Amino acid sequence: MKIFILSILLLSITTLINGGITSKYVRQAQPANEMSLETFPSPPGHNAPEQVHLTQGDRDGRGMIISWVTPLNLAGSDVVTYWIADNGSDVKRRKKKASTSSYKFYDYSSGFLHHSTIKNLEYDTKYIYEVGTDKSVRQFSFTTPPKVGPDVPYTFGIIGDLGQTYASNETLYQYMSNPKGQTILFPGDLAYQDNHPNHDQRKWDTYGRFMEPCAAYQPIIYAAGNHEIDFVPNIGERHPFRPYSHRYTNAFKTSGSISPLWYSVRRGPAHIIVLSSYSGYGKYTPQYVWLEQELKKVNREETPWLIVMVHSPWYNSVNYHYMEGESMRVMFESWFVNSKVDLVLAGHVHAYERSERVSNIKYNITNGLSTPVKDPNAPIYITIGDGGNIEGIANSFTDPQPSYSAYRESSFGHALLEIKNKTHAQYTWHRNQDNEAIAADSVMMYNRYFFPKEETARDCFIC
Amino acid sequence: MKIFILSILLLSITTLINGGITSKYVRQAQPANEMSLETFPSPPGHNAPEQVHLTQGDRDGRGMIISWVTPLNLAGSDVVTYWIADNGSDVKRRKKKASTSSYKFYDYSSGFLHHSTIKNLEYDTKYIYEVGTDKSVRQFSFTTPPKVGPDVPYTFGIIGDLGQTYASNETLYQYMSNPKGQTILFPGDLAYQDNHPNHDQRKWDTYGRFMEPCAAYQPIIYAAGNHEIDFVPNIGERHPFRPYSHRYTNAFKTSGSISPLWYSVRRGPAHIIVLSSYSGYGKYTPQYVWLEQELKKVNREETPWLIVMVHSPWYNSVNYHYMEGESMRVMFESWFVNSKVDLVLAGHVHAYERSERVSNIKYNITNGLSTPVKDPNAPIYITIGDGGNIEGIANSFTDPQPSYSAYRESSFGHALLEIKNKTHAQYTWHRNQDNEAIAADSVMMYNRYFFPKEETARDCFIC
Ligand SMILES: [Fe+2]
Ligand SMILES: [Fe+2]
Repeated sequence: MKIFILSILLLSITTLINGGITSKYVRQAQPANEMSLETFPSPPGHNAPEQVHLTQGDRDGRGMIISWVTPLNLAGSDVVTYWIADNGSDVKRRKKKASTSSYKFYDYSSGFLHHSTIKNLEYDTKYIYEVGTDKSVRQFSFTTPPKVGPDVPYTFGIIGDLGQTYASNETLYQYMSNPKGQTILFPGDLAYQDNHPNHDQRKWDTYGRFMEPCAAYQPIIYAAGNHEIDFVPNIGERHPFRPYSHRYTNAFKTSGSISPLWYSVRRGPAHIIVLSSYSGYGKYTPQYVWLEQELKKVNREETPWLIVMVHSPWYNSVNYHYMEGESMRVMFESWFVNSKVDLVLAGHVHAYERSERVSNIKYNITNGLSTPVKDPNAPIYITIGDGGNIEGIANSFTDPQPSYSAYRESSFGHALLEIKNKTHAQYTWHRNQDNEAIAADSVMMYNRYFFPKEETARDCFIC
Repeated sequence: MKIFILSILLLSITTLINGGITSKYVRQAQPANEMSLETFPSPPGHNAPEQVHLTQGDRDGRGMIISWVTPLNLAGSDVVTYWIADNGSDVKRRKKKASTSSYKFYDYSSGFLHHSTIKNLEYDTKYIYEVGTDKSVRQFSFTTPPKVGPDVPYTFGIIGDLGQTYASNETLYQYMSNPKGQTILFPGDLAYQDNHPNHDQRKWDTYGRFMEPCAAYQPIIYAAGNHEIDFVPNIGERHPFRPYSHRYTNAFKTSGSISPLWYSVRRGPAHIIVLSSYSGYGKYTPQYVWLEQELKKVNREETPWLIVMVHSPWYNSVNYHYMEGESMRVMFESWFVNSKVDLVLAGHVHAYERSERVSNIKYNITNGLSTPVKDPNAPIYITIGDGGNIEGIANSFTDPQPSYSAYRESSFGHALLEIKNKTHAQYTWHRNQDNEAIAADSVMMYNRYFFPKEETARDCFIC
């Protein structure tokens, strides 16, 4: 509450600022050195489960998919046991079997990849779960979200292009050091295994271990990035997204999708739509048909906040991957505006950028009207490919800063979206060099459906 | 030769014409009534082969894929016998087994679909081939193209969105009545089975029988259209292009592609690139990666004519599917201009349109420069979805006619591309209501690599 009042006071200061901000906080060459394979060994114990991670397992948050890997496929390796925490003596343990697969990729053979979907959980309840057998049982926990509804406060973390560098480690642990984040929205590029010869798949395993301290305790909603494609025809790997889809799954079928690459979930006050930059999105394609239907299903009275995740950004003014998202923007932007999407999250560019509420949908092929304009129905576009990656920071901007760009900075970091109610959500972006309490960029976002007022950003929360 | 001189004489007339032409030849409601299932029964004879069709079976035209269907999978049903015609007593018969599959779709079960790839044929040679066993053997023939080379005359027919209506029948037989066409370039939408309840797959069979008198004698190079998708999740059909890919195959692997939906062949003087509007084409996708490599492989000294086929048009000024191709244009147009593509063939819109040589590639997301401009390095875009379809003719144009549109008309028809040598190709479009000798639209096209002169079109060849 204190922070809320403070933020209102500070708002008045920033109304003085005109035009976009290119943060002066730039390090010429922020390190993105990868942590070694040895940094993340398998946990001890015979056939110990590892790389435990969670994602939402149903449409509305009463389900969870619990995923883990075991070296061997022994009896019981594929079973999760779970129960409500703090139920005193009335502990009712349930068991659920996983579906299990493994894959080969060039000279690599995966462990056994288990995914168990548990359903009909109580809302807003802490659960304990265990995987593993005999002496290598490992115990974790998670808390289910509140029931889907319009005035349910809920906080999402936002992390993209994480990788497994020392910078990645800073980002992840800075996010975890703040207890606010309840679920992570992750717009793609996870392990960067494909930056290694023959897409060294062991890096998928180390990434899974690196993430576990976070991913085993709160769900991560992923969109697939280009580093998940693992398409290497010259070594015989001709099926895009094969390792990724073995390792990371989701409840796409519950949203009527045919592919884990595009789907939706509803969680607390938010309807979250995940799209694939790397699948067909032309008219008549499965993704196109699905999105058209999906947008009709959004009920803002139940889920006031409409959030889209897609890997390749549509509004990006950094000199990396500039305009790569145009082809998809051209296809879907008018739908987003018509549907009053609140927020679009992308990654891919290894920097941070927040857009103004703009749209660029007046164009037809003869009128030349193709300049982004202010549009109160448009989403704010966030590019947050600043998790840590391996390729380094993107530190060259288009100049001058285009009018659609509200704030941009070459730093690693993460963001938080604290949805307060059906009209207000506090959005903050945190660079890794700061104390978590400091937000380098922050906006009180107003819901496009219930309160479509213009926002005023502050470029520094507590500077 | 006579016609060639005549065309030069007539050229002078058309230099008077300024701006694009919207043909006054418009029938308000051209019939597109489908021929009944009974129009195309199976051929007589026990297990007689049917739906025979050809496509190029290798990179350079020494291979042919012979495809046919049999009701049963009896011994010998999957074998083709072939030999060089007119070899006197020195007839050397060869046999080749097919790969055979069948599929189910909702309540339909297909026959056995055979595809046999015969290779190492002599160039420029007539072959006879036979399929079927016992009393139901059927014999057909084809002629191989000349060896790939820069000054090899060759004539392509161009037919799109054919369907199986009475109009389709007119189009096909008008094309066949002219002996010039040696190979058909077909930018998608074949049978329109999906306009029937549950995508009545019997219409695939009748289409195959309808086409056989043409398709068994000359190869057809197909691009896939939206009517090939057959994506109907509500009846459990969740795999796009499944029936199509069972029935129509091609030598995609010989061009390094992983999918029959995008590939290339070289035939006589032409390098033909086929793209898919309905697959992923974003950066990093298999199609994108393939096309980037493929354009580097084009050798204009060997194949001076570079032709692209894609179903959804990029420059279309008809009020149907207007700007549906924008998303793909945004992705690849600059590549086409840089590669000096001669001709882009599309279908989808049920009318005929030819573009000026224009490009629209100066735009970036802030400069507003998004109007097509004349560009001597740009292809001519042909929309030729005027085969006959089932949905009727597209008879409403955007007004005024945009500057990129050179000629447009609401009629059914087909086109011929008569490549004369490495600099000249006579292009003519024929509406079905005319005698085949009449070309409603014609252009002497000049090769973009060897002779990038501006062309002058004539809107009527012999009027
Ligand atoms: Fe990326
Ligand atoms: Fe079409």
